[in-house]
Amino acid sequence: MTLKLSENANEKVAEALTNTKQTVPLVHCITNRVTITDCANGILACGAAPIMAEDLREVEEITSISRALVLNIGTLMPLQIEAMLKAGKKAKQLGVPVVFDPVGAGATKLRDEVSKQIIDEVKPDIIRGNMSEIRALYGFAGHTKGVEAAASDAVTLNNAEEAAVIIKEMAEKFDCVVAATGEIDILSDGKTVYLVANGHPMLCKITGSGCVLSALTGAYAGAAGKSKEGFLEAAVGAFVLSGLAGESAYAEVEKAGAGTGMFHTKYMDALNLLNADDFRKKAKIYVEED
Amino acid sequence: MTLKLSENANEKVAEALTNTKQTVPLVHCITNRVTITDCANGILACGAAPIMAEDLREVEEITSISRALVLNIGTLMPLQIEAMLKAGKKAKQLGVPVVFDPVGAGATKLRDEVSKQIIDEVKPDIIRGNMSEIRALYGFAGHTKGVEAAASDAVTLNNAEEAAVIIKEMAEKFDCVVAATGEIDILSDGKTVYLVANGHPMLCKITGSGCVLSALTGAYAGAAGKSKEGFLEAAVGAFVLSGLAGESAYAEVEKAGAGTGMFHTKYMDALNLLNADDFRKKAKIYVEED
Amino acid sequence: MTLKLSENANEKVAEALTNTKQTVPLVHCITNRVTITDCANGILACGAAPIMAEDLREVEEITSISRALVLNIGTLMPLQIEAMLKAGKKAKQLGVPVVFDPVGAGATKLRDEVSKQIIDEVKPDIIRGNMSEIRALYGFAGHTKGVEAAASDAVTLNNAEEAAVIIKEMAEKFDCVVAATGEIDILSDGKTVYLVANGHPMLCKITGSGCVLSALTGAYAGAAGKSKEGFLEAAVGAFVLSGLAGESAYAEVEKAGAGTGMFHTKYMDALNLLNADDFRKKAKIYVEED
Repeated sequence: MTLKLSENANEKVAEALTNTKQTVPLVHCITNRVTITDCANGILACGAAPIMAEDLREVEEITSISRALVLNIGTLMPLQIEAMLKAGKKAKQLGVPVVFDPVGAGATKLRDEVSKQIIDEVKPDIIRGNMSEIRALYGFAGHTKGVEAAASDAVTLNNAEEAAVIIKEMAEKFDCVVAATGEIDILSDGKTVYLVANGHPMLCKITGSGCVLSALTGAYAGAAGKSKEGFLEAAVGAFVLSGLAGESAYAEVEKAGAGTGMFHTKYMDALNLLNADDFRKKAKIYVEED
Repeated sequence: MTLKLSENANEKVAEALTNTKQTVPLVHCITNRVTITDCANGILACGAAPIMAEDLREVEEITSISRALVLNIGTLMPLQIEAMLKAGKKAKQLGVPVVFDPVGAGATKLRDEVSKQIIDEVKPDIIRGNMSEIRALYGFAGHTKGVEAAASDAVTLNNAEEAAVIIKEMAEKFDCVVAATGEIDILSDGKTVYLVANGHPMLCKITGSGCVLSALTGAYAGAAGKSKEGFLEAAVGAFVLSGLAGESAYAEVEKAGAGTGMFHTKYMDALNLLNADDFRKKAKIYVEED
Repeated sequence: MTLKLSENANEKVAEALTNTKQTVPLVHCITNRVTITDCANGILACGAAPIMAEDLREVEEITSISRALVLNIGTLMPLQIEAMLKAGKKAKQLGVPVVFDPVGAGATKLRDEVSKQIIDEVKPDIIRGNMSEIRALYGFAGHTKGVEAAASDAVTLNNAEEAAVIIKEMAEKFDCVVAATGEIDILSDGKTVYLVANGHPMLCKITGSGCVLSALTGAYAGAAGKSKEGFLEAAVGAFVLSGLAGESAYAEVEKAGAGTGMFHTKYMDALNLLNADDFRKKAKIYVEED
């Protein structure tokens, strides 16, 4: 496997950004209690529209008027699991893309079981997690430390190959896009593998950067063509957006001698301000060549 | 109908601000999961005190020690609906003003039914929503896009008359203050119609600006005289506060070349810093003259 | 009782900060819906790792992999109370320190009953509340105004003695550390009494500063030696961190002529940036001498 910087991919993610801003997709989120506000603000910042709803009596209707559905298991509760399954099945019936974020998979039996159930019964179009959660889904013995990626799962450009093989196999096995966050992000639809080298470690020092990324992935998927390839490019676009926003936020934080409080504000600013030209110039997307 | 800028109204909203800061009303909110933090911070910023509670075993007690009750259906859940009805009825028994925010009314049957039930059984003193939600309550076929106002419902000074008639009729029909947010806000108690021309479009690009406005309306109503007229002036005051805060926040964001992250911070700053003199000088309140 | 500034205590809290940053304890929070995001961000900012979970089927597993458990009753719900009891008992079995924040105790029967049940059945290692809540637990007739400290309960250096006696007795009675927030904070393990004079009144003008302090107390306790003395020093450390962060945030807000929005951001920045040296130089810790 050889990795090559892809200018073509930069053009595609620039289009994904533009599509999202032009179509303003409505994104239905059933998500955790910690980062629900940030998910809504992230979706608005990138040009889409959020709606959060999980009452069993309305989830199907909400999904029906939405362009994407995001399921996040960060703070599970009994009725919420039912709502996810109900909305997820409706979405698949209607061709609404489903993003699944298996927060904390590998940490408890419940999260593993619910993840399995969502994958089996809903068949999400995109699974977005950190490397440790993705490994847990794959059946590897991951080490989940809270909901942040375990250090032992750190993936860099130098050792990305093993992880890339896993992600690609898993995408094939689950017949969906798998998108894993790390020092280097790895995304695949089972055919193509993309690596995204944008981002900053401070993203792990605010809560919700992973959840927001899943929400952004929903927004971009909602504006994308309805094919596995379309969803893969949408996910790569959302990863670039979040990664560049992290870089931009950190640059301002460093200059000001500030901390994670300012980082959070500037991250939202950047999600709002980054444009197609920034994507063209600053995205660092590698594509696998056999 | 002729609209006229009212200096007298500016004086009244300045008083509403002062009353709120002096009496520090405790505001009981049963509200959605997305914007609950912003509602609490908004209430604190304007000089009041928030308390969020929805366990059926304590809502009546909490309402009893509060000066206002705010019901927001943005993320409905079965027990929460019961809590709203229970707290709402208690509030009415005790003369505690009730603000109802029908988030997403028109989007699902559940939201319509719950809205109807709250209006019928609780009889809120103030209904605060965007034009699309208010139209849904009125029985018009609104177009709800997520929880933001549908573009087709945009109201400006030039075409405010039709909407003003609806709001006034509805206030009469429901025997309460109806307060609708738009490019121009329209508020009526069934007799008088006020229009508020303060605000900025970026308020729609952060989540919670509508919910916060309902919470602020609760704070101001909690400090107001207990009459329909008092509640109307309180609502106009809260709308001016939020509108001016949006204007002030955007001025800083524009100067800094920033985005919605900074806007959120500066909006909270302004809710906290605006004073009676700002209201006197900068409020743009029109009053209907027959 | 004589109060004396303690340089030795400053050294101890500096160690507490360093320990927390070095060991990155995982902190399990079952907490309220208003401040859950701020609690997670506060824990991350100070160098620890948060995990929020309350499904009955996973709370024991989550507690088992955690180094501290924080229980906060700010927005009670039936299943949440069960989750707190279950996780709390597991924590005690395993020697995981439990911090209890009796938000709003004294305001409703439910909060009093649940507080009593948690104290009786879980036996928390640290109880952290404002003076009014602590008095309510002690059986005094407190005046709870929302969840902020009632003005009549204001404790200053000049009248700290009476309150210090109560806190010490209560720590003895409940066999745990009691840590009360006020203009002057008072903490005791039943033997030693510490007073912390850091902080700023604007901390009461943002929601969550009390809840975040309880979360920070959990983080520091998770990194501390497992003794009552260790937990007391951990709590004093967390109080100094939050107090200094409030001072630092206010200094920036005052300079900028800003309000509570910026204060919130700068408070998080300071939680993230304060170091052991800042603690040594700026902590104002008094210790009781008989």
